[in-house]
Amino acid sequence: MRARFLTLEGIDGAGKSTHLSFIADWLKRQGIDAVFTREPGGTPAGEKLRQMLLDRDSRLSLDTETLMVFASRQQLIADVIRPALEAGRWVVSDRFTDATFAYQGGGRGVPEERIRVLEDWVQQGLQPDLTLLLDVPQAVAGERMAASRELDRFEVEKSDFHQRVREAYLARAARYPRFCVLDGTRSIERIQADIAAALDRLIKED
Amino acid sequence: MRARFLTLEGIDGAGKSTHLSFIADWLKRQGIDAVFTREPGGTPAGEKLRQMLLDRDSRLSLDTETLMVFASRQQLIADVIRPALEAGRWVVSDRFTDATFAYQGGGRGVPEERIRVLEDWVQQGLQPDLTLLLDVPQAVAGERMAASRELDRFEVEKSDFHQRVREAYLARAARYPRFCVLDGTRSIERIQADIAAALDRLIKED
Repeated sequence: MRARFLTLEGIDGAGKSTHLSFIADWLKRQGIDAVFTREPGGTPAGEKLRQMLLDRDSRLSLDTETLMVFASRQQLIADVIRPALEAGRWVVSDRFTDATFAYQGGGRGVPEERIRVLEDWVQQGLQPDLTLLLDVPQAVAGERMAASRELDRFEVEKSDFHQRVREAYLARAARYPRFCVLDGTRSIERIQADIAAALDRLIKED
Repeated sequence: MRARFLTLEGIDGAGKSTHLSFIADWLKRQGIDAVFTREPGGTPAGEKLRQMLLDRDSRLSLDTETLMVFASRQQLIADVIRPALEAGRWVVSDRFTDATFAYQGGGRGVPEERIRVLEDWVQQGLQPDLTLLLDVPQAVAGERMAASRELDRFEVEKSDFHQRVREAYLARAARYPRFCVLDGTRSIERIQADIAAALDRLIKED
């Protein structure tokens, strides 16, 4: 079986972390060796860039932010994603380029075409095999976030920002068949049954 | 008189610092208000990126390095260069995009076309009005450097690296009329007479 590249997406508070550990357990039970990573970050250089990106005191222009996200991604692809896939290991990333289209594009207004130029520059054709999108209404995500943690530079954005991010995610999901949209307002058990089914289909492909 | 954007280029050890202070004095004597900056860096975010770029322990992929250079440049353009030019102030930058074509392109082998994609993305047509290239043979620069300071991640590169950087600079100078090539092996006085003449021509344009 060839190795697969899997990404998990969703607005802040959608519940990605909960389901990442389910995915890890599920893959282990299938005897599948997988590397888990996250964006931005996942490498020493990428984690430094992540700190700058999430720091509320960073005064980054929107275009600089976008370039830094892709700089972190480039290093992750070179050091983690491509080597793992070439060695036959699956890769599961907590966010990838769809998040750039959603946050910097939909949320902040970088034109989609400009993001696509950098996507081509960095990925040179690499795309996830499956993208699980945890979709929840902004109000639900906002409540979860307020209850749980101190907010970073993206999380403090107003609710209409997160609404635009959500819409951008859904628009991409409608366009690219690699997406599997999961209604994140349901019980954890029902969501995870859908995730397991999606992973099962992925294993059985080709 | 419209504001001008001036860049100073050359391999490490070519003598840029010496001549930057001459340029500052010369402009001041003409009553020209100028902003001095440097690359990578020149903004708080840019200086953090510069630290990562110059740190010998950074394990940056070549493409990541290139993206970070342009991220720093983007912030510099947004926060320093465009606002200064719009306010009628001259901008003098110690290095700019020619350095990316020379170091990451000529020196390290990033294809010129890939650099040009990022140049267009970030600069959207912005180019220096005048680029002073201090040209010295690599052997001369290497001797000056060895005598003077601890070396960073670029300066420790072997001499054939600096030779390729120099050749890339000269190739660009042959192609773009905005370049003024200065033989950096001559006396400081003779070099500075040429710089003054070039600045004088620049003032008299349009």
